Amino acid sequence: MTAFYFFVFLAACGAAAATGSVFLPGAWYQSLKKPSWTPPKKAFPIVWTTLYVASAIAATRIAISDNPGPGLALWSLQIALNTLWTPVFFGAKRMGMGMIVIALLWLVMAAITVVFLQTDLIAGLLMIPYFAWIGLAGALNWRIWRANRNRNK
Amino acid sequence: MTAFYFFVFLAACGAAAATGSVFLPGAWYQSLKKPSWTPPKKAFPIVWTTLYVASAIAATRIAISDNPGPGLALWSLQIALNTLWTPVFFGAKRMGMGMIVIALLWLVMAAITVVFLQTDLIAGLLMIPYFAWIGLAGALNWRIWRANRNRNK
Repeated sequence: MTAFYFFVFLAACGAAAATGSVFLPGAWYQSLKKPSWTPPKKAFPIVWTTLYVASAIAATRIAISDNPGPGLALWSLQIALNTLWTPVFFGAKRMGMGMIVIALLWLVMAAITVVFLQTDLIAGLLMIPYFAWIGLAGALNWRIWRANRNRNK
Repeated sequence: MTAFYFFVFLAACGAAAATGSVFLPGAWYQSLKKPSWTPPKKAFPIVWTTLYVASAIAATRIAISDNPGPGLALWSLQIALNTLWTPVFFGAKRMGMGMIVIALLWLVMAAITVVFLQTDLIAGLLMIPYFAWIGLAGALNWRIWRANRNRNK
C-alpha cells in the first residue's frame, strides 16, 4: 500500500504543479514591482519539486499510520487550495483573491503541520519547509499586491 | 470529528468550485460548436453544488470508517484534478489538455467509487452521480474539442 499512497499523493501534487506550466509568469508579472527579497525565478521549480515530494512522503506516512483521517482530510484541502492559487494569481491576475487563497492555505498548512507532528514526527518535520515556503509566498503575494494597487483587477 | 471532516472536505470542494467563479464561460465558450445534448447553462451550478455536498458527505463517512486511507488518498487526487480542469479549459482555453485532465479524473472517480463502495455502501452510492457527471462532462469536452479543432491552442 505504501507505493500506492505515494503514487496517488504525488499525482495530486502533479495536478497542482501542472498549473505552473499552464499559467506561466509572463510579461504582466515581470512588469510588477517586487520586493528585493523576491527569490530568483529559477528557484521556484526546484523548491516546489522538493516540497511536493516531501509532502507526498509525509502524507504516505500519515496514510499508513494508526490515525490517517484528520491529516489526510487537511492534506486534500491544501492540495485543492494550492491548485487554485496559480490560476487565480497568474491566470486571472487577481492578486487580492490570490491573497485570500494563500492566507487560507497558510492556515491549513499550520494545522497540517501540527496534526502531522502529533501523528508521526517525521511526517510533521517533512511539512515544515512547505509551511515556511507558503509563509514566504504569502508575504510575497501581499507585497506585490500592495505595491501594484493600480494594476489590480 | 464528523463535523470537522465534513467542513474540511466541503472547503476543499469550495476551492474547486471557486475556479468556476474566476474562469466563467465567456464569449469564447459561447462561440464554440457544441453537441445538441449539452446541458443548459443553468444546470451546472445546481448539479455541481449537489455533487460537491454528496462528495463531502461520502468522504466524511470514509474518514470515520475503519479503513479511511485508500479512499481519502484518492479523494485528494480527484479534488486536485477537479480544481485543475476549469482553469485549463475555460482559463487557458486548452481543450486538449482539458481532455487529458478530465480523462484522468474519470479514471480516478471510477477507482474512488469502487473503493468507497467496498468501505461504506452509502459513501459509494453518493459518488455514483459525480462519477456519471464526469463521464458526461468528459464526453462534452471531447465533442467540443473535436468540433472546434481550428480553435485549439
